Amino acid sequence: MNIGIIGLGLIGGSMAIDLRRRGFADRVTGVENDKVNAEAALKIGLADVITGLEDCVACSDVIVLAIPVGSAMTMLPRILDLVAGTGKLVIDVCSVKECLCQAAKGHVARGQYVATHPMAGTEYSGPWAAMPGLFDGRACIFCDVEESSPKAVETAARLYDALNMRVSYMRSDAHDMHVAYVSHISHVTSFALALTVLDKEKDEKHIFDLASGGFSSTVRLAKSSADMWVPILSRNRENVLRVIDTYIDKMKDFRDAIDDFDEGRIRSLIEESNKIKRIIR
Amino acid sequence: MNIGIIGLGLIGGSMAIDLRRRGFADRVTGVENDKVNAEAALKIGLADVITGLEDCVACSDVIVLAIPVGSAMTMLPRILDLVAGTGKLVIDVCSVKECLCQAAKGHVARGQYVATHPMAGTEYSGPWAAMPGLFDGRACIFCDVEESSPKAVETAARLYDALNMRVSYMRSDAHDMHVAYVSHISHVTSFALALTVLDKEKDEKHIFDLASGGFSSTVRLAKSSADMWVPILSRNRENVLRVIDTYIDKMKDFRDAIDDFDEGRIRSLIEESNKIKRIIR
Repeated sequence: MNIGIIGLGLIGGSMAIDLRRRGFADRVTGVENDKVNAEAALKIGLADVITGLEDCVACSDVIVLAIPVGSAMTMLPRILDLVAGTGKLVIDVCSVKECLCQAAKGHVARGQYVATHPMAGTEYSGPWAAMPGLFDGRACIFCDVEESSPKAVETAARLYDALNMRVSYMRSDAHDMHVAYVSHISHVTSFALALTVLDKEKDEKHIFDLASGGFSSTVRLAKSSADMWVPILSRNRENVLRVIDTYIDKMKDFRDAIDDFDEGRIRSLIEESNKIKRIIR
Repeated sequence: MNIGIIGLGLIGGSMAIDLRRRGFADRVTGVENDKVNAEAALKIGLADVITGLEDCVACSDVIVLAIPVGSAMTMLPRILDLVAGTGKLVIDVCSVKECLCQAAKGHVARGQYVATHPMAGTEYSGPWAAMPGLFDGRACIFCDVEESSPKAVETAARLYDALNMRVSYMRSDAHDMHVAYVSHISHVTSFALALTVLDKEKDEKHIFDLASGGFSSTVRLAKSSADMWVPILSRNRENVLRVIDTYIDKMKDFRDAIDDFDEGRIRSLIEESNKIKRIIR
C-alpha cells in the first residue's frame, strides 16, 4: 500500500519505519513543512519522497495525519475534501479526539476517516526521535467508529495490527476524559516539577549531583515539546482543568498531613497511593 | 573488614552485595528485626549471619545504619554508646541528615560517626529488592564532616569508593533543603498522581489500557514504601512544606493559563520547564 504521512516527527516517523519494515507500506510519501525536519526525514530514510499535501493525498491509499492537534483540526477537513469519492482512508494519531471528530462531523467523506490514538511516545520529538518498535504491545484507541465506514475501520485495524498494537474502542468524549487522567496530567505534573526545581535551585550543579533516578523519571516528561503540548492542554481544557483541581487537592492533603505532624495520615495517603502497584508494574 | 549492616532492605542489602563482591567486606553481620526479611536476607545470602544489635556492633569494624530515619534517630545514640573508645566507624544512609547529626551532637563518640547519603534507590524495598551495582556512578553526600574524625571520614570514603560513588560534602541543613527539592518532592508528586488517578478512574482497566510509558515513569515512585517515606516527610517537614507550596503555585500557573485559553502563557511555561534538559539527560 502507498502511505502518506503528514508530519514526520516522533509518531509519524516511527510509523513510517515499522509500516515499511513489516511490509504494510510499499511506499511512504511525506509532508513536512519544517525544512530542517524534511531534509532530516529524507536523509534518515523515513519517507521515499517529500511532497506538498495535494500530491501526497493523490498518490496515497492511506493518509496519516501526525501533526499537533491544533493544526490537525484545520487540515482534516481539507484532506477529507481531497479524498471524497475515492477509496482512500484518513487517520489521525492525536492525543485529543473529540475536537477532531467534531471537525469532521457531517463531512461527505466522514466515513473514510477513523479517529485513532496510538498510546505510545517518548519525551523526544522530531524525525531524529523516530524509532522502530515504538508501538509494539501498546494500546490504540479508535473513537466514534460508528461514524466511519466498516471498510475504513478494517483498513485502520490492519495498519495498527502491523504495528503490533491492541485496538480498543471508545467514545471520543470518554477518551478525552480518560487520557486527561492517565496521560495529560502526568505531563503537567512533570512540567510543574521542573519549574519548581529550576526556580529554587539556582545552582544547577546541586540538581545534577542530587538528582537520583527517581527525580529523573518523574521529571522526564518535562522535556516534551511545547508545539505538541500547548494544543493538547488547550483543546482538552475542561478535562485537564478538572484533573488539575483534583490533583491540587491531593497535594494539599499531603501538605496538611505533614503540616499537622500527622504521621498516621501521611501513612494512609502513601498506602492508598501504593495501590497503583496493582495496575502499573 | 567486618561490616555490620542494620537493616537488610534495598539499601543495606545492596551495600552488602557490592561491598562483599568488591572485597571491601570480608564478613557481613546483619541486624534485621523483621522475621520474614531476616530469613529472606539469609537465604538470598546478603549476610553471613543475623544477630542482635550488640553482637553485631561487637564483631564489626564498620556499622552501617540502613533503617528508616525515625528509627535511626533512636538507634544512633545507642550504637555510639557501644562503639565509644573503640576504633569502629558508624555511618547511616538516611535521606534526611540534620536530625541525625543533632541526635549524635556532643556524644563522646561523635567523631566515629559519619552522616552519609548515598543518592541511589528504586521504588522497591525489602531484601528481595537488593541488587548489585545500585550505587555505581551516583553521588554520595557526606554531611557535617568537621564533626567526624579524619580517620572515620577516610574509612567512609573508602567504603563509598568501593561502591563506585563520587563523594561530595555539604552541611546537613543545606543537604535537607536540596534533597527536598530534588528528591522528596518527586515522591510527593507521584503519590498525589497515583491518588488522583485511583480516585477518578474507578475502572482500573481504563488505567491499564491508557497508561503510556510516560504515565508509568511519572507514577513509578508512588510504589515507594510508607515505612521509609513517612519519617522522611515528617522529619524534613519545613523544607518539604516549602517545596510543596512552590509546586502548588506552579500547578496553579498552568491551571490559570489553561483556564484563560492563554496559549502563549502555556507555551512559555512549557518552554521554561524544558530547560531541565540541560541538567537531566
